[in-house]
Amino acid sequence: MKVNNIIDTFLNPKSVAVIGASKNPLKGGHRILKNLIANNFKGDIYPVNINSTGKVLGLEFKKSVLDIENDLDVVVFYVPNQSIPTILEECVQKGVKGAIIEASGFEEVGNKGLELRDQIVDITENFSKIRIVGPNCMGLTRIDGDSDNEDKGGFFTSFLVFNEYKRGNIAIISQSGMLNGGYFTHLVTKYPYLGFRYICTIGNKMDLSELEFLDYFLSDPEIKVIAMYLESFKDPRKFIKLCEKAKDLQNKTIILTKGGLTSQGQKSTISHTASLSENSKLTEATIKQSGIIQARNFYDLFEFARTFSWMYATNKTLPKHGGVAQIFGSGGAGTISADLTMQYGLKLPLFKEETYSVLVDLFPEWMPPNKFAFVDIWPALEKAMTIGINPGDIIRKVYATLLEEPEIEGIFNMLFCSKQFRVVNDVNYLIDIISTYPKPVFLFLVGEYDEVRLVTQQLSKHSIPSFSNLEDMVKNFRILLQDSNKKLIK
Amino acid sequence: MKVNNIIDTFLNPKSVAVIGASKNPLKGGHRILKNLIANNFKGDIYPVNINSTGKVLGLEFKKSVLDIENDLDVVVFYVPNQSIPTILEECVQKGVKGAIIEASGFEEVGNKGLELRDQIVDITENFSKIRIVGPNCMGLTRIDGDSDNEDKGGFFTSFLVFNEYKRGNIAIISQSGMLNGGYFTHLVTKYPYLGFRYICTIGNKMDLSELEFLDYFLSDPEIKVIAMYLESFKDPRKFIKLCEKAKDLQNKTIILTKGGLTSQGQKSTISHTASLSENSKLTEATIKQSGIIQARNFYDLFEFARTFSWMYATNKTLPKHGGVAQIFGSGGAGTISADLTMQYGLKLPLFKEETYSVLVDLFPEWMPPNKFAFVDIWPALEKAMTIGINPGDIIRKVYATLLEEPEIEGIFNMLFCSKQFRVVNDVNYLIDIISTYPKPVFLFLVGEYDEVRLVTQQLSKHSIPSFSNLEDMVKNFRILLQDSNKKLIK
Repeated sequence: MKVNNIIDTFLNPKSVAVIGASKNPLKGGHRILKNLIANNFKGDIYPVNINSTGKVLGLEFKKSVLDIENDLDVVVFYVPNQSIPTILEECVQKGVKGAIIEASGFEEVGNKGLELRDQIVDITENFSKIRIVGPNCMGLTRIDGDSDNEDKGGFFTSFLVFNEYKRGNIAIISQSGMLNGGYFTHLVTKYPYLGFRYICTIGNKMDLSELEFLDYFLSDPEIKVIAMYLESFKDPRKFIKLCEKAKDLQNKTIILTKGGLTSQGQKSTISHTASLSENSKLTEATIKQSGIIQARNFYDLFEFARTFSWMYATNKTLPKHGGVAQIFGSGGAGTISADLTMQYGLKLPLFKEETYSVLVDLFPEWMPPNKFAFVDIWPALEKAMTIGINPGDIIRKVYATLLEEPEIEGIFNMLFCSKQFRVVNDVNYLIDIISTYPKPVFLFLVGEYDEVRLVTQQLSKHSIPSFSNLEDMVKNFRILLQDSNKKLIK
Repeated sequence: MKVNNIIDTFLNPKSVAVIGASKNPLKGGHRILKNLIANNFKGDIYPVNINSTGKVLGLEFKKSVLDIENDLDVVVFYVPNQSIPTILEECVQKGVKGAIIEASGFEEVGNKGLELRDQIVDITENFSKIRIVGPNCMGLTRIDGDSDNEDKGGFFTSFLVFNEYKRGNIAIISQSGMLNGGYFTHLVTKYPYLGFRYICTIGNKMDLSELEFLDYFLSDPEIKVIAMYLESFKDPRKFIKLCEKAKDLQNKTIILTKGGLTSQGQKSTISHTASLSENSKLTEATIKQSGIIQARNFYDLFEFARTFSWMYATNKTLPKHGGVAQIFGSGGAGTISADLTMQYGLKLPLFKEETYSVLVDLFPEWMPPNKFAFVDIWPALEKAMTIGINPGDIIRKVYATLLEEPEIEGIFNMLFCSKQFRVVNDVNYLIDIISTYPKPVFLFLVGEYDEVRLVTQQLSKHSIPSFSNLEDMVKNFRILLQDSNKKLIK
């Protein structure tokens, strides 16, 4: 069976059975079923439980997969580890193509778990009879339509029921179930305009691993961003080879958070997914050769994913040399931003003669603009108001001037968000300008917390990234440069 | 005049005049007046404007400070730079003790500004006749009572009117006006349970600088945390000496964000506050000798300030060796946290025999706890629920066991926040335990965004720090260690 075919079956099954389905809403087996039904899974769904009769959520219980008459593509196991071998034998007998095993208690618990693993290898004839995702995972998610749309839903096998999500260009591959659980809930409520297409938790990766999923996503043109959390590489050489393939594709970015970089983290990966994690040096070398982006923590992983997702969604041109201009209303914030810009390998270029002369006209004589791409816009706005010009026109003019200068590849703009000053800081015209030009513009928001959140959402709707930490802003621009440079040096 | 006396006058004046007061609510001179009145300044307030007559906000305009009959402690200038010398002469004649000059257009604009500066030096007889805060600043704030209390208010001279604030143990000294403006608004709405006592923006520090304010706050027992933003050191030696004084005081922590570490940042500080900023090496050396905490950006500056403020407010014992325990429900988050813990120089100690045996009893046989201070609590909770024990009791027991082990100096605890699971994740009992023990406990929150915010506020009320980025959590614990170690090595 070609690898991509089996991943395709796992992500787009025509039928699925939930082993360990339960009437008790507190049990995971109940919630998996609910997740499938509530999110409109279009194929056949079979609740299976040897101890149950009657119906659950409107569906008839089966005692065994062997009682199912039709073909069965995928089963999801939510039963204790010990009971899996017997049921898995029945799955093989039934001709089931793939099993997602969510239960833990395998390689990660030592000898008893390793025995179980050996049994599974035997039963599946070394995974030739049926392929395995997991064990010790939180299932797979495919999002076909946004949760607030009529065509909402897809294929949802987490034991946490998802109510909110948006379809988009991100795929997640993770050895942590959290990313198809509580953390995913966090992401979709924190970034309500960020879209995901697949989430694949691979747990101990007894059979299928990051390699097969990565390969699959590389050939899916809808997927632009692949965000990964790994505790070990299944095969570093193959991983590097696949990532090199991504370099040749213009619109693919891979971001990785690697767990187990230190001895404490390594102890943790062993007890979590039985991963013998590579240490930080080996990981660094692998990532360097792969030419992918590393994120130190989950927060960065998804800030980066958001940034790339939106840059692709709005067809922005990624920076190639790192020239950026900043428009700031505060000298202090501007200073720190300028420092960070340099610390992160970016630069604020000197203005060309023509550019500078355009700016000079907008500024009062007593406070001319800087000669390098750091615009303290406040004096220009004051001048405009004094002579009765709409400040918005000035901002538009400054933006246009900066964005038309070739050495400037993007803009950092500080915005003060306040109910009192909402009229002054109307962001709609900003959204217009930013959407007109192919260069990325990132915003740094300060001011009243609720107002910052409101503006964040307004900008998010148009896929414009904003930040409330200057360093996050600079760091997220820096990775755009890193990614585009990696793609140049093949 | 003793330095502390003049700072005392600036922060606690009995009378204040606003030069440039205006009837026009869009003008800064109007808003400064409003800020004083709306926030119940208890002394006399005089609006002064040579071009105005009648009343503003219920107060009679004066043409000049010389028209004021009573003594005048402090004047606030909100008039164009050019008109300042003449008025300042009148202030000297009147015997005003201090002037806060908010106008810009001095040293930072070059020759014309330097001429103005020289005039001011002459008029003030080298600042012997009247002391200056600024120019190019956003005034001073003293908070006497919370904004939602009857005794709200204090002394407010920013041209941004503040409506929300809480009195507390933090003092800010800043060369950026933003910290007594839009960014302060951000802080008080982001951290509604974080209290501040003073905010002092010092601008170009033509006369008074960070040194005098720092000295003043070091001798004020109410101030525990001094958060600073500087673009240059007025006198590095004196600065170091003052900071060394803080080491001898048990309950003082100084945190500094320094602008102008790079050549781009230095260009910026020159045009902002005319500061010839020290580069990163000199700054590093000064900070190292000072034994203070450095924050790379404003976000960290105030996360750190919050952490210390709350540790002092709840009388927590700061870690001395860096031993910490983590209680996590996700192996992935736990792994990254373990890695970060080590990367930041902290450690997860091995349990003592007794401690481990207590934990073993709480865990199911198939999933014993780790032998080092990384507790995946989920199996213990499952066991509890199976045998009908309240999961809260287990959490309490785990906490108590960990917090009683001497090598463990604090806890990192992950919490999943979800409306669905609110009953399971009731944080009140957690708050009880955390408040009982003198060791710091930091929480990492994931789950639904609004629910995360709700829990954040619940914890904040009790001065318990929470984070949605693992690295922030670890970094904030790390600085506690750094601070307590600096105080040990005198």
